[in-house]
Amino acid sequence: MAETLQIPDEDAAWLAPHLSSESAIQSVRNQNRPFVTLTFATSLDSSLSLAPGVRTRLSGPESKAMTHYLRRQHDAILVGVGTVLADDPGLNCRIAGAGLDAQPRPIVLDPRGRWDFTEHSKVFEVARAGKGLAPFVLIGAAAAVDSEKQTVLEAHGGKFVVLDAREAEPRFDWPSILSVLFAEGLRSVMIEGGGQVINSLLSPNSQQLVDTVVVTVAPTWLGRGGVVVSPERVHTPEGTPVPAARLADAAWRQFGEDIVLCGKLSRED
Amino acid sequence: MAETLQIPDEDAAWLAPHLSSESAIQSVRNQNRPFVTLTFATSLDSSLSLAPGVRTRLSGPESKAMTHYLRRQHDAILVGVGTVLADDPGLNCRIAGAGLDAQPRPIVLDPRGRWDFTEHSKVFEVARAGKGLAPFVLIGAAAAVDSEKQTVLEAHGGKFVVLDAREAEPRFDWPSILSVLFAEGLRSVMIEGGGQVINSLLSPNSQQLVDTVVVTVAPTWLGRGGVVVSPERVHTPEGTPVPAARLADAAWRQFGEDIVLCGKLSRED
Repeated sequence: MAETLQIPDEDAAWLAPHLSSESAIQSVRNQNRPFVTLTFATSLDSSLSLAPGVRTRLSGPESKAMTHYLRRQHDAILVGVGTVLADDPGLNCRIAGAGLDAQPRPIVLDPRGRWDFTEHSKVFEVARAGKGLAPFVLIGAAAAVDSEKQTVLEAHGGKFVVLDAREAEPRFDWPSILSVLFAEGLRSVMIEGGGQVINSLLSPNSQQLVDTVVVTVAPTWLGRGGVVVSPERVHTPEGTPVPAARLADAAWRQFGEDIVLCGKLSRED
Repeated sequence: MAETLQIPDEDAAWLAPHLSSESAIQSVRNQNRPFVTLTFATSLDSSLSLAPGVRTRLSGPESKAMTHYLRRQHDAILVGVGTVLADDPGLNCRIAGAGLDAQPRPIVLDPRGRWDFTEHSKVFEVARAGKGLAPFVLIGAAAAVDSEKQTVLEAHGGKFVVLDAREAEPRFDWPSILSVLFAEGLRSVMIEGGGQVINSLLSPNSQQLVDTVVVTVAPTWLGRGGVVVSPERVHTPEGTPVPAARLADAAWRQFGEDIVLCGKLSRED
């Protein structure tokens, strides 16, 4: 298996005020949703990867360890199916000393049932090795449940969870997705990607569902044609373009060659 | 006139190793060019502005003061004509105590002679107030010199400088542009924008002409449709996309709500 990771105590202390806490979790409980952390790593030109489906090493070892540390602080980590298809990720926490009870539940958002996993997909290999949990796969009501896949999932302790019909339209019905996670007893979720997931959460309609944002930026320009984090343009009623999203209480800290930014969404308009 | 600006001594000390020095200027002298600093401010989604021609306040007062401090460290500041048309900028240094002898020479890159300035353009108002120098306007050999504009320019101490014929193609002939500045006795230049100027300097063909890069990032997403810093895609000979540019020796420092990144271009491939 891959190496275990560590982060310095002072980095952990710096992150602490930006993470979910018991009181933060309580404060969103009446919305029937978990505490939501949105986190991802981009280049300076806001790309997640060189091209759709191309796994791209962006962040250095220090900020990668930071990401695994963050995973440990959450009940669940969520990615869109595109990320799973592109990267075949392990979706576990590799921080040194993180036992199975410290592992977050992987959530794969797959409304149309596109993920053709097998027991050889990395997330199941990780689960069999006792280094992570099997995923909950969120599918739309219209997606057919494949019984072979269901067997693999359930043999590892995962399952399919059917989203209610509203999920078909609009594309990402975040209140519905988050209420499903809440109903599963998951009280905090770290949403990691990919581009469509992130951009939809940064849109004005969804921003109020995000409690904290942690962005890593690597000192690289990937160049045009990558998978870009940039929400849809926002206009005033008069048609003037305005910034789509802004982070309040921005705090930045260097991790290796990269910078990590924590803040809370507060749209300007 | 606008307010004067200051930066804390510790910020100035942090910047010092990234700036032009006598030895750095000497080291590029045999290339017949000035020391080149590329500097600009973007949103997290790498936009310089909300849309072409729309002046957009991005960076906060601390990083804005930093930019003016940087201008003072250079003989010249260069912008493309698009920036001048969009912003009508003063192109001076507003650091407290910066006398006329500390002012950089504004250089406007206008190969096709698009800038229809008058004595009321801000850069001339600034020059008449003794708060900055009049620009040198770099035009292509094919651009007609307007005698009225020439009179305004020369009355303020500026001039047209004709670029040699190579400038027509390729779009930005940086060796030629920089040799013209060198011939004018300018030993350091801070290149500030806009998008086309920056992207062309970040391309593989031009990176070796950039000695240092200073990027400010504001904790905002402007959204799609802005003027984006992202160089052309770079591929290996086999057609695999690779990062277009990377900064070595990356150093980051928070200025107010923004982050400032200094480094040197070193392309990965």
